Amino acid sequence: MSDASHDFGLRAAAPLRSAAPGSLAARVLDGDVRAAARLMRLIDDAQPAAEPELRALFPHTGRAQIVGITGNPGAGKSTLVDRLIAHLRKQGRSVGVLAVDPTSPFTGGAILGDRIRMQDHALDAGVFIRSLATRGQLGGLSRATSDCVRVLDAMGKDVVLIETVGVGQDEVEVCRLAHSTVVVVVPGLGDDIQAIKAGILEVADLFAVNKADREGADRTVRDLRSMLELNHAMLGAGDPAGWEIPILKMVATRDEGIAELWQAIERHHAFLRSGPGLLQRESQRARNELVELLRERLLREALQRLAGEGGRLDDLAQRIARRELDPYAVAEAAARG
Amino acid sequence: MSDASHDFGLRAAAPLRSAAPGSLAARVLDGDVRAAARLMRLIDDAQPAAEPELRALFPHTGRAQIVGITGNPGAGKSTLVDRLIAHLRKQGRSVGVLAVDPTSPFTGGAILGDRIRMQDHALDAGVFIRSLATRGQLGGLSRATSDCVRVLDAMGKDVVLIETVGVGQDEVEVCRLAHSTVVVVVPGLGDDIQAIKAGILEVADLFAVNKADREGADRTVRDLRSMLELNHAMLGAGDPAGWEIPILKMVATRDEGIAELWQAIERHHAFLRSGPGLLQRESQRARNELVELLRERLLREALQRLAGEGGRLDDLAQRIARRELDPYAVAEAAARG
Repeated sequence: MSDASHDFGLRAAAPLRSAAPGSLAARVLDGDVRAAARLMRLIDDAQPAAEPELRALFPHTGRAQIVGITGNPGAGKSTLVDRLIAHLRKQGRSVGVLAVDPTSPFTGGAILGDRIRMQDHALDAGVFIRSLATRGQLGGLSRATSDCVRVLDAMGKDVVLIETVGVGQDEVEVCRLAHSTVVVVVPGLGDDIQAIKAGILEVADLFAVNKADREGADRTVRDLRSMLELNHAMLGAGDPAGWEIPILKMVATRDEGIAELWQAIERHHAFLRSGPGLLQRESQRARNELVELLRERLLREALQRLAGEGGRLDDLAQRIARRELDPYAVAEAAARG
Repeated sequence: MSDASHDFGLRAAAPLRSAAPGSLAARVLDGDVRAAARLMRLIDDAQPAAEPELRALFPHTGRAQIVGITGNPGAGKSTLVDRLIAHLRKQGRSVGVLAVDPTSPFTGGAILGDRIRMQDHALDAGVFIRSLATRGQLGGLSRATSDCVRVLDAMGKDVVLIETVGVGQDEVEVCRLAHSTVVVVVPGLGDDIQAIKAGILEVADLFAVNKADREGADRTVRDLRSMLELNHAMLGAGDPAGWEIPILKMVATRDEGIAELWQAIERHHAFLRSGPGLLQRESQRARNELVELLRERLLREALQRLAGEGGRLDDLAQRIARRELDPYAVAEAAARG
């Protein structure tokens, strides 16, 4: 099959776009922090105005190394992220950080935003930290995070750290965006490891046992090791191409083990680059994103079409509730357009 | 605006369907338990074969009273549901129960299925109990639950109880299907009430303080009361049309307070029926369902169209990962069809 049939003329019809002079995208590419912040706010608010800018940024992405940091609340993730930032800055690398907080759609919830550590790096132009909350429905969070990672990538950040507040389903999805995901645990929490089993194992590339000066650190390492072996034996989980998930002890507050953690992350990234792993991960990410974009666009268009034909959604819903119309028939007709 | 323009010819073009003789739907309408079980399995497995049957059942639905029972694990929900079943059976009402378990998509997880209580009612033709797990992605659970409720409704069950295993986002969505939702809590768990704040308040129509023979039951009632008052004052939460959420103490294991709970549920249902509440809830449910049906159908069709034009999703994703194509342009082209 030729390339032309593969992309059904897309490459000719819709070439990769470049950023219009003065646009938000052009300013982001120039490293303009205010423009980046504004675009990320548009993304967080699910504003359609973000899309043309993201399109223009797209060809300039794919250079940043993306690292996910996840784990239960209280595991010391933010301190660990702090120290990683400092370590990377000493190496001369620029860093973007996304702190992702899937708050309840009901309560609104607090944004992680103004934390002490943000002040530590506030005057450093090589660091850009943003908090991201869900304002929309479920699933919107990983879309928004993906788009924000793209902004930081296009800005020229060498490393993008995605920090999550918990280990729920939403956070697992978010970690799928990363090249390498670090799961942070602390000693002495049997429940912690139980919770990890629930879903995070699928995305863990490295384990960090933080607060390793506490009693039980070695036991936690052993427990994790057994769990990984069991999973590998029983379910064939883990990367089949031969990555052995390292378990690293550290005390982030004392800066112990941070350099080793970064070395291990680099080793994982090199491992991905040396085989099919990197393209596989990026393709999987692109696939999820494409499906999500398509789903949104199709629904938006169908609802507009419905409205244009006098079929307001609320009216239709009320008529379905009264059993005058059947929802399957309405969906079929609306899809036909 | 005339009715004809409202439904853009739908009523004429797609009249409510009736069940073909011998079909699963026809057998469900005859109260055939095996047919109902088979259709619910098709639904749980997200098989397209379920849709024509559900369409045929649709005109025969809307009669059952739907009650959601939610609360943290350990609150005694299954015992409470048990006693409610027994109470309803004594009144001569038939009961359908859906035990909804949003398991991790990663671990597979256990289905609630074989529990002791199922044996208690196994020989009673007036009771039909089914467990439901998610096999698909997030969000699929409330769709599947909605469809299964419809099957039980069409079978002629007077009351459908939806029991959830936890109080997460998925469970909140499931409870939106009910006419009345009971949130079950137990004394002495401050955290429990904290957890409830997260999202369940929006769907709570009644609170059941179970295991009320334990120390601290009155305190829990007071805490809940304060929380409700605070929410009402601060956020205007709660039904604006004047339903005061009752807080009922009970000891389900000793059958204490069950009759009072059912009376309160009946009072809530009467309240909904006497005003716009019932139609509002059913319309909201129909609206969510319609959007979900439309979303699924549109995506399925678009992916088929893509595949037909040689644009296999995986190939496109890989080309996006290589930055040869841009995901926004691909989504746009695919949506255009």
